[in-house]
Order: sequence, then C-alpha cells, then structure tokens
Amino acid sequence: MLIALALPTTLAARSGGYTLREATAADVDALMELLADDGISASRGDVAQPEDRPAYLASLEEILAEPSNTVLVVVDADGAIVGTLQLTRVPVMARRGVPRLLVESVRVSSRLRSSGIGSAVMDWVADVAAPALGAGIVQLTSDMKRVDAHRFYERLGYDRSHFGFKKQVG
Amino acid sequence: MLIALALPTTLAARSGGYTLREATAADVDALMELLADDGISASRGDVAQPEDRPAYLASLEEILAEPSNTVLVVVDADGAIVGTLQLTRVPVMARRGVPRLLVESVRVSSRLRSSGIGSAVMDWVADVAAPALGAGIVQLTSDMKRVDAHRFYERLGYDRSHFGFKKQVG
Repeated sequence: MLIALALPTTLAARSGGYTLREATAADVDALMELLADDGISASRGDVAQPEDRPAYLASLEEILAEPSNTVLVVVDADGAIVGTLQLTRVPVMARRGVPRLLVESVRVSSRLRSSGIGSAVMDWVADVAAPALGAGIVQLTSDMKRVDAHRFYERLGYDRSHFGFKKQVG
Repeated sequence: MLIALALPTTLAARSGGYTLREATAADVDALMELLADDGISASRGDVAQPEDRPAYLASLEEILAEPSNTVLVVVDADGAIVGTLQLTRVPVMARRGVPRLLVESVRVSSRLRSSGIGSAVMDWVADVAAPALGAGIVQLTSDMKRVDAHRFYERLGYDRSHFGFKKQVG
C-alpha cells in the first residue's frame, strides 16, 4: 500500500474512461487471469491454475501489506479489471540518493491492447505517482522478446540503457 | 535492514578473507567514495562532493529503516570498506508469486577488481541470502556499457533476458 498515492483516480484513454485503484485480495482471480492472458507470462507458468491460487494470493497480500509496495488495477465502466501494474518505491544511494520507482508486471487485457490504457497508466506513473512518492527515476525491465513493449517505453521517453539479468535460486 | 540475514559473516575470496556486514549511517563517506570510484557512476554525478553528503546520508538511512531493504559492506582485515551492494526483497505475483531479491549498486574498490570479492559476494547472495529471505529469483540490471560485468554475471549463472529502461522525472 503506497498511501501517498491519491487513489482511486480516473484515466482517460482513447478507448474510454477507466478507474485506477489499489488492488485488494478479492482481485486475485482477475489478476491471475490477466497474467495468464499474456504469452510470455504463460510460457513461464502463469496459467491461472487453481492450485497456484494460494501462492498468488499470498504474494498479493504481502505486496499490499508493505508500505513501499502496491498492486494497482485498471477497472472499466462495467467494473471489469482490464489492466494491472505493480509499483515499488526503492531508495537507492547511487545517482546522488534519488529514490527510484520500480514498475513491474504491467499488463493490459489482450482484447484491449493498443487502446491507450497502457499509455494512460504510464503517463500517470511518471507525472503523478513518481512525484507523489518523491521518486526522480522510474525504472522497469522488459523481456527481450517484447519488441512492441520496447518501442512503447521508448516512445514514452524511457532510455533503454541497461541489461536485465535473472537467476533462479533454491 | 533485512533481519533474516545472519550478519556479519565471513567471505573467502582469492585475495583473502573479508567481513560482510550491514552498513550503518557512519559508513556514508566510504560509500560515497566507492560510488565515485567507478567511471560510469561518476559520469552520472556520483563524485563524492561534500554538498551531496546529506542526500546520500538520507538515502542510506531510509534504506536501513526499511524492513525489506538494506545496504551491505565488505570490510577488509584492516577495517577498510572495499565493497558494497544493496539488497531489496520484492514480492511479485508474476511467475506464480515467487519473491524476488533485487541486487543494486554492486561496487568493489578499483584497486581490488578481479580479486574474487565480487564473486564471493554474489555467491553468498544466491546461496545464502536469497534462501534466507524466501526469494526464488535474484535479479539485477547492469548498464549496457559494463561489458565485463555482463560476462561476470553470465559466468555466475545469470540469464541476460531483459532490457532495463529508465526515465528521469520531476
């Protein structure tokens, strides 16, 4: 829960108006479906299996309990969850101690891709959320296979300056 | 402060034995020097100017106050700080809710590069710290200009699977 964010708020996208709010534990099934509604996530095991629900729910509850961390959802006029992202505020000494806002797991329903929801959310992140949280840098990583996403972030003014490395452990 | 880590501990590197411990506010000057002792950091403004000390100190104190976040230092037999890294535990729903351990700002004193300190620290991160924190994925980003670092992480079993994007805001 990032209490400095003034939520819920309204997002205006080409495809209409949406509400952006913090997730609650009751959103877990919709979030599992959004993760599964993405080929790259699905290839990593995010396929909304019922037996994985406790792990997703535990993760969501843990995120919401942290004061520097949250999951947000985009809700359409019918109350359906059509998008999500995770925000984590991370103080970092490098670059003269400017806090970072980490963006993770940005997803928009496949039936609404290219509808302007992603842009509206990311504009809100840079223009509203980061200043509210005292963050001077917004950062994220994107799988090398997500070529369209890379163009999207570069169009929004993000600098592709780093490689992202991951190692599975345990 | 990540209290689940059993620190201080001992690191055995090719160049000798070192102590790994959590930083304290009293380490701020040594940490500023280590950041400045790196060409890429220095090019971004980390040049250990006295007028930047309050910002670095505020960042360090904020990191140490968070229960999911810490700065560690590597100390040699004479008590000198010769390395540092930041660890942040981040729960994430994607990949079936496996928590991540984020590694940031890994630095080793330039006079001790290729001495085995970096490997010893990163082995400890994957083999000891991540399991102690219940993290199943260790992740980091590295500036595209750090070609030697990329080889180092790949040698340690990291998969270069993502691009890292950053945007300055505010």
